[in-house]
Amino acid sequence: MFDSSKEAKKLFECIIHPVKLDRFFNELWERKPLLIKRHIANYNDGWFSTAELDHILRQENIQYSVNLDITSYENGKRETHNPIGRAYAPVVWDYYQNGCSVRLLNPQTYSRRVWKLLAVLQEFFGSCAGANVYLTPPGTQGFAPHYDDIEAFILQLEGRKNWKLYSPKNESGTLPRFSSDNFSEEEIGEPILNIVLDAGDLLYFPRGTIHQATALEDTHSLHITVSCFQKNSWYDFFEKLMPRALQIAFEEDLELRKGLPTDYLHHTGVVNSDKESPERQFIMGKVEKLMTSIMKHAPVDAAFDQMGRQFVHDSLPPVLSESEKSCSIHGTGERWDSQRQQVTSMVEIEPDTMIKIIRKGAVRLVMEMDQVHVYHTLENLRYYHGTEPQYVDIPIDAAPAVEFLIHSYPEYVPVDSLPLDDIQLKIDIVTALYEKGLILTQEPLDPIYEEGVDENEAPM
Amino acid sequence: MFDSSKEAKKLFECIIHPVKLDRFFNELWERKPLLIKRHIANYNDGWFSTAELDHILRQENIQYSVNLDITSYENGKRETHNPIGRAYAPVVWDYYQNGCSVRLLNPQTYSRRVWKLLAVLQEFFGSCAGANVYLTPPGTQGFAPHYDDIEAFILQLEGRKNWKLYSPKNESGTLPRFSSDNFSEEEIGEPILNIVLDAGDLLYFPRGTIHQATALEDTHSLHITVSCFQKNSWYDFFEKLMPRALQIAFEEDLELRKGLPTDYLHHTGVVNSDKESPERQFIMGKVEKLMTSIMKHAPVDAAFDQMGRQFVHDSLPPVLSESEKSCSIHGTGERWDSQRQQVTSMVEIEPDTMIKIIRKGAVRLVMEMDQVHVYHTLENLRYYHGTEPQYVDIPIDAAPAVEFLIHSYPEYVPVDSLPLDDIQLKIDIVTALYEKGLILTQEPLDPIYEEGVDENEAPM
Amino acid sequence: MFDSSKEAKKLFECIIHPVKLDRFFNELWERKPLLIKRHIANYNDGWFSTAELDHILRQENIQYSVNLDITSYENGKRETHNPIGRAYAPVVWDYYQNGCSVRLLNPQTYSRRVWKLLAVLQEFFGSCAGANVYLTPPGTQGFAPHYDDIEAFILQLEGRKNWKLYSPKNESGTLPRFSSDNFSEEEIGEPILNIVLDAGDLLYFPRGTIHQATALEDTHSLHITVSCFQKNSWYDFFEKLMPRALQIAFEEDLELRKGLPTDYLHHTGVVNSDKESPERQFIMGKVEKLMTSIMKHAPVDAAFDQMGRQFVHDSLPPVLSESEKSCSIHGTGERWDSQRQQVTSMVEIEPDTMIKIIRKGAVRLVMEMDQVHVYHTLENLRYYHGTEPQYVDIPIDAAPAVEFLIHSYPEYVPVDSLPLDDIQLKIDIVTALYEKGLILTQEPLDPIYEEGVDENEAPM
Amino acid sequence: MFDSSKEAKKLFECIIHPVKLDRFFNELWERKPLLIKRHIANYNDGWFSTAELDHILRQENIQYSVNLDITSYENGKRETHNPIGRAYAPVVWDYYQNGCSVRLLNPQTYSRRVWKLLAVLQEFFGSCAGANVYLTPPGTQGFAPHYDDIEAFILQLEGRKNWKLYSPKNESGTLPRFSSDNFSEEEIGEPILNIVLDAGDLLYFPRGTIHQATALEDTHSLHITVSCFQKNSWYDFFEKLMPRALQIAFEEDLELRKGLPTDYLHHTGVVNSDKESPERQFIMGKVEKLMTSIMKHAPVDAAFDQMGRQFVHDSLPPVLSESEKSCSIHGTGERWDSQRQQVTSMVEIEPDTMIKIIRKGAVRLVMEMDQVHVYHTLENLRYYHGTEPQYVDIPIDAAPAVEFLIHSYPEYVPVDSLPLDDIQLKIDIVTALYEKGLILTQEPLDPIYEEGVDENEAPM
Repeated sequence: MFDSSKEAKKLFECIIHPVKLDRFFNELWERKPLLIKRHIANYNDGWFSTAELDHILRQENIQYSVNLDITSYENGKRETHNPIGRAYAPVVWDYYQNGCSVRLLNPQTYSRRVWKLLAVLQEFFGSCAGANVYLTPPGTQGFAPHYDDIEAFILQLEGRKNWKLYSPKNESGTLPRFSSDNFSEEEIGEPILNIVLDAGDLLYFPRGTIHQATALEDTHSLHITVSCFQKNSWYDFFEKLMPRALQIAFEEDLELRKGLPTDYLHHTGVVNSDKESPERQFIMGKVEKLMTSIMKHAPVDAAFDQMGRQFVHDSLPPVLSESEKSCSIHGTGERWDSQRQQVTSMVEIEPDTMIKIIRKGAVRLVMEMDQVHVYHTLENLRYYHGTEPQYVDIPIDAAPAVEFLIHSYPEYVPVDSLPLDDIQLKIDIVTALYEKGLILTQEPLDPIYEEGVDENEAPM
Repeated sequence: MFDSSKEAKKLFECIIHPVKLDRFFNELWERKPLLIKRHIANYNDGWFSTAELDHILRQENIQYSVNLDITSYENGKRETHNPIGRAYAPVVWDYYQNGCSVRLLNPQTYSRRVWKLLAVLQEFFGSCAGANVYLTPPGTQGFAPHYDDIEAFILQLEGRKNWKLYSPKNESGTLPRFSSDNFSEEEIGEPILNIVLDAGDLLYFPRGTIHQATALEDTHSLHITVSCFQKNSWYDFFEKLMPRALQIAFEEDLELRKGLPTDYLHHTGVVNSDKESPERQFIMGKVEKLMTSIMKHAPVDAAFDQMGRQFVHDSLPPVLSESEKSCSIHGTGERWDSQRQQVTSMVEIEPDTMIKIIRKGAVRLVMEMDQVHVYHTLENLRYYHGTEPQYVDIPIDAAPAVEFLIHSYPEYVPVDSLPLDDIQLKIDIVTALYEKGLILTQEPLDPIYEEGVDENEAPM
Repeated sequence: MFDSSKEAKKLFECIIHPVKLDRFFNELWERKPLLIKRHIANYNDGWFSTAELDHILRQENIQYSVNLDITSYENGKRETHNPIGRAYAPVVWDYYQNGCSVRLLNPQTYSRRVWKLLAVLQEFFGSCAGANVYLTPPGTQGFAPHYDDIEAFILQLEGRKNWKLYSPKNESGTLPRFSSDNFSEEEIGEPILNIVLDAGDLLYFPRGTIHQATALEDTHSLHITVSCFQKNSWYDFFEKLMPRALQIAFEEDLELRKGLPTDYLHHTGVVNSDKESPERQFIMGKVEKLMTSIMKHAPVDAAFDQMGRQFVHDSLPPVLSESEKSCSIHGTGERWDSQRQQVTSMVEIEPDTMIKIIRKGAVRLVMEMDQVHVYHTLENLRYYHGTEPQYVDIPIDAAPAVEFLIHSYPEYVPVDSLPLDDIQLKIDIVTALYEKGLILTQEPLDPIYEEGVDENEAPM
Repeated sequence: MFDSSKEAKKLFECIIHPVKLDRFFNELWERKPLLIKRHIANYNDGWFSTAELDHILRQENIQYSVNLDITSYENGKRETHNPIGRAYAPVVWDYYQNGCSVRLLNPQTYSRRVWKLLAVLQEFFGSCAGANVYLTPPGTQGFAPHYDDIEAFILQLEGRKNWKLYSPKNESGTLPRFSSDNFSEEEIGEPILNIVLDAGDLLYFPRGTIHQATALEDTHSLHITVSCFQKNSWYDFFEKLMPRALQIAFEEDLELRKGLPTDYLHHTGVVNSDKESPERQFIMGKVEKLMTSIMKHAPVDAAFDQMGRQFVHDSLPPVLSESEKSCSIHGTGERWDSQRQQVTSMVEIEPDTMIKIIRKGAVRLVMEMDQVHVYHTLENLRYYHGTEPQYVDIPIDAAPAVEFLIHSYPEYVPVDSLPLDDIQLKIDIVTALYEKGLILTQEPLDPIYEEGVDENEAPM
């Protein structure tokens, strides 16, 4: 029984092997760097290669500044050398030969294997996963010291690179919300880690960790940086929760709708903050009481659903296997028969059809304005926010069916078992989800009796 | 000693006479309507009259839809008859003769007495005060039943009008945030008050009270509605407080910067709200703990200052008396001497000059981004938000001087008594405020020795 | 018989006295500067004075940068010293005492006499007239050498100023479309005129003339610059004409709708401009033929009407005399009778009412999209483009009546003489124009029999 | 010697075979419809098929409303049935089975053969070519009668369809600029052509021809409509020419910069159009004279270059053959050698390299603001305006080299023969064009001596 959650966990365990999950999350995650020296040069093989980069440059319309950067960092000076327009392979190699680094942005758009890597990891992290690929000529450095706003996993793919990591310069640099500007050497002090990454090795460090890296003199370096947890903190959750809490409290607590005391301006504010008047005490007491009321009204689950909706919009679409395609709308159903010059292979969802959600992390049921929306990743593109958020509108009384399907995952269940009263409603709801690609059947659906085709030609 | 706060209180007491302030705010305000029958037809005289309306239409460029509306309500049908462009008096009277009501918006822009009325009341309420004037032909009604988003004081000026008030239709109509659409007669039920307002009378009712009114058959009706407490509730305060609280907590509490648990999506949201898993319990406990932390960081006084800043921007400018003008930049200082064809009457702030803030409610000291801004109403226009928020930039070490002036009000204090170390700094800060019209001197400043003029002509 | 055209001509003759109109327009206008030394210090008196400036600063909300500039030009360096917010008189005089020049923008907004001056001149020029006032302390200069995009008339009001004028630096500086940046002394060469302007004198120079001026050491200088003919050239007319000509030709000439030859790209363009192929000759011949066709379709009068419409929008509203007010909606008609507490003095346009357009230049009849619009200046404000273009919609069959009124000006004609078939239509059309303030009656209209008021109270 | 112009001509001859080019353009083009019955069912085979549509729906992210429409027209009612989101094949076939038509927009984006068809035709027409594919179930009609704004070539691919064409309803419907709304049957009258199109047939009709079509009862219908000459008329050319002509005339003819006569408003416009005053005659004479001047200054070749620039931006990129790729940057030059883990195969343009432009219609040399830009189609995407206009900046003294290359097409010329003084400049300019993919070499370039790689590693 395929379970996308379990697959995701296995992949991540493989990436940080031999470190155990528990140890990683209890001791290292968001706390300190992790270096794994593997002495197995081909451990990371398959995710990406310089040859694949060459291939992509020839096959795809890669645009400077949009998809690819040409950079250098020499004598403390960071430069970007991007021309305008399409990056043709020979021109990119010219820059490389002249000592420039090449950064391919979002390789998942062009590389099916990177796509798959990230699509699986995002399910593990519960947070959108991204990637960049860095190719560095021997003996050079492409970027100035800086820190990023994401958790970083460096997978060394080819060659060797010398990495130096530095502590945040102060408290507010710890787990920061935004990436830094470039630092000068003077600003960053002594490294806390200074090591060489060989092909097959892994380096992890938390957002806020200042870093820089140089390819060794004797070889180029190629690595992929997998990133996650950008804007995925408790703060981001509360940003969604707080305005909703206030809104609900306004509707339910009359005290919050009442006017401020007419004299409040004379007892509050920086000018009056040292005063101890009874009016001020009354006002401050009122503030505290109302705060508590607001908190009590906070719609916690609705805010988590908004986080989930955001996650589903940010995500990559799933990479489907051939067998998954043949058990979903992606590969089965009506098709054009060139021989007979007509449509054939009509299929239908039946009460005993065994079904499941196509991926655990691919859907999110959200209540919005008295409507039920099933947000999903199926029509997302392989570049970030390539579409608007996509959802299926569900009648409110059909919500338990979707909930049931989500909780049943990864088991298949018969359509008939959905907790709804009406068999037609069960079939309708499953068909609606099926036609959006969200449902996997246990077996490929059988085409129904073909003569029916002719009788079905009445205009709609 | 003139005290703008006391003057404001006296005016409001006069408006609700013989009801006492205490009773009004404890029993009626935001709770229920108040009708005061005075049997003194000229009690409200002086604020406005139909003759003044006629005068304004002739002197000012009054625009339909912007400054004036022509309306009717007949057989349950509410219509607006506004032409385009300027409202010339004879055309307005034509509409009136044909049974249309005339609503003059923001009479304070054209009427000095309404301006003064509102400028004083806003200081009493600590909330922007507005007004509309309604003229209704005998036996007609100009508006459909509806409720507004403001506390309403109806001052009957001429003639008589039959008012009917109705309770909010449900809980959420109590102290509402936005005005209603028009209601039909069927929707509103039986009135809770059905009375006739004669000239000199007052009617108050809270926001959310549904109302309609008809001029009696034997006479026209003219009243002015004074409004306040639009978006001035505790909710509005918390709308300013909450995002700031979250922002500060982010900076000071590392826990809030940490990432969400990787599996949070599987234990939260509407789909999981009935689950009792340990993971869910952990997450909910965390939410509560962080909420408490956010509340602890809430910058209450800074948020009140933002309310104050808003109030100062929304306010009318003060109406200054001739003696106030002669003791401030509005009426004193350098002037052009047509005889001598040169500038004369130079004045200067001296250490012993006795000064005070020109109006208690006209300034608000606010800390913003490590700067101190003294927001003020002096350059506001007589129509709403006619200018950007106006402020004087103050060096941070001069803030105690402004605070001292605010707390000293209504007393005059010598410049030298300001709590700063340096006499020049004292004079500079007072001069900066004086030149923006914020400072009143106890006596008109004496022109300094005139021969100095010639020696001062060096280019800057 | 008052004729606004004649009044306008007289005023301009007075301004350039003793130079004759013919000579001015034939020899000087747009060609060369004109200096008139009058030796009558008070010849320009009455238009504006420094005392009026002082008065305006005290009465009006004059804003730095919007309505007033504080400037200096010293040692080749031009600076603007504008603070933010309202310009209080004493602060402005401080700057003046320190050697700064004061420029009041658009004095017509605050000064009734400047308003009248410009409102009359705009009618003479057939082009919007503007003004600035410049006050300069003794021995100083406020602006760097530059040229403007308007015809300039300098009226010296007080004191004395040394003016230097310079020729345009090249052909394209003659009658330019846009004002210049500041020039350095080295760039401008030797002056073509170097004279002193005394109070009462006039200096005219065409747009494109480089100029600078310094107040003499012994006295301040005050002058008003009246400007006109900004974007009022033949070019501006053709900018309106050409797209319309092309549009009409497209509709009427099928040749223009036909496709380009499929091979045109190979015979045209800079790369082929030296070729003499038959295809090129054919194409060039076609271009010429179509050009002629476009020109033939040019809607010349419609384009002039668009210029007229623009002029009417750009214009100041007319300054009406008391007697004009009493013969138009501005001063007559229905009014509120405070005694009787009702509307009185109803008036009506009758067939024998003698009428004329209120100002010749205040209206423009324009055909737009099969509709007839009478654009007018009556609701314009005293600052530039204070309103949208204002017009009265006229039924197409009533257009001859408006045309008749325009051509009859300045004579009064009876309503009945309008060239329309139906007397009611005549009255309706005149009433519509009258209610917008566009019609002047020969005598004030008599109030109709008052008892009618009561009978007319039926709701509309 | 491959010549893209000749190839394009041959393809179009094939499409309208057996009609001759001369006859087509002299008698039919933009004049009347052409029907070619071929009785060879597979004459149009290869361009597209329903099987290819099925394939595209499975492979590509086809979005309803963006890339595909589901329509019906029954009993005079035209409907669009597009859901939201991706069009999965089985759902599309469901609609088809229910009698809906399927329109695939811009098949060139997904079908390489349609891309090639249009890329070649655009070169023939000198105008952007587009396409839609229409699949209609037996016995149905998908669209209401209407006309389009393009020259239409209907290539029947499968099945049979009954077409009815109607004359434009009036003059202004001939060669219109914009497509029509839908017509009712009553509006369009009797057809001028009423025929059946079989697979292999062609139907051409000019823009403005009203049309409707129904699939016969016994079979579905599939056709592709190839369109061209949208906004490619003489009018479009003059729209670019006229404002430029006026601009240049302004700069060169002082008369155009002069002001309008001060009294022009009293002699022009619709109100004065019947007047014969001398002033009016003078003004009209002046208008005529200035018109002639503007025409004389018209920059005809520059406007044609702007048309060319637009064409290049609107165009599809060329479809390159394998041998073309191997003789251009698209397939040759530096590449990553996975064995040696370094860049190899460096190539260089030499003086004796034989070169040509890659496609005659793929470049346009344009002078803009004293700069020379070589606009090109090479980086355009396969959907309309997928990129900004792309160009190579050329030094002004290198322009003759580009001109020489354009005129030499389709011959190869040695780099050394370019009409420039300096051999290095020749190589630089050719390299710049080569690196943008605009240059084809006669032979694949030979990799240069590989040891050089190591010596070239100095940082740039």
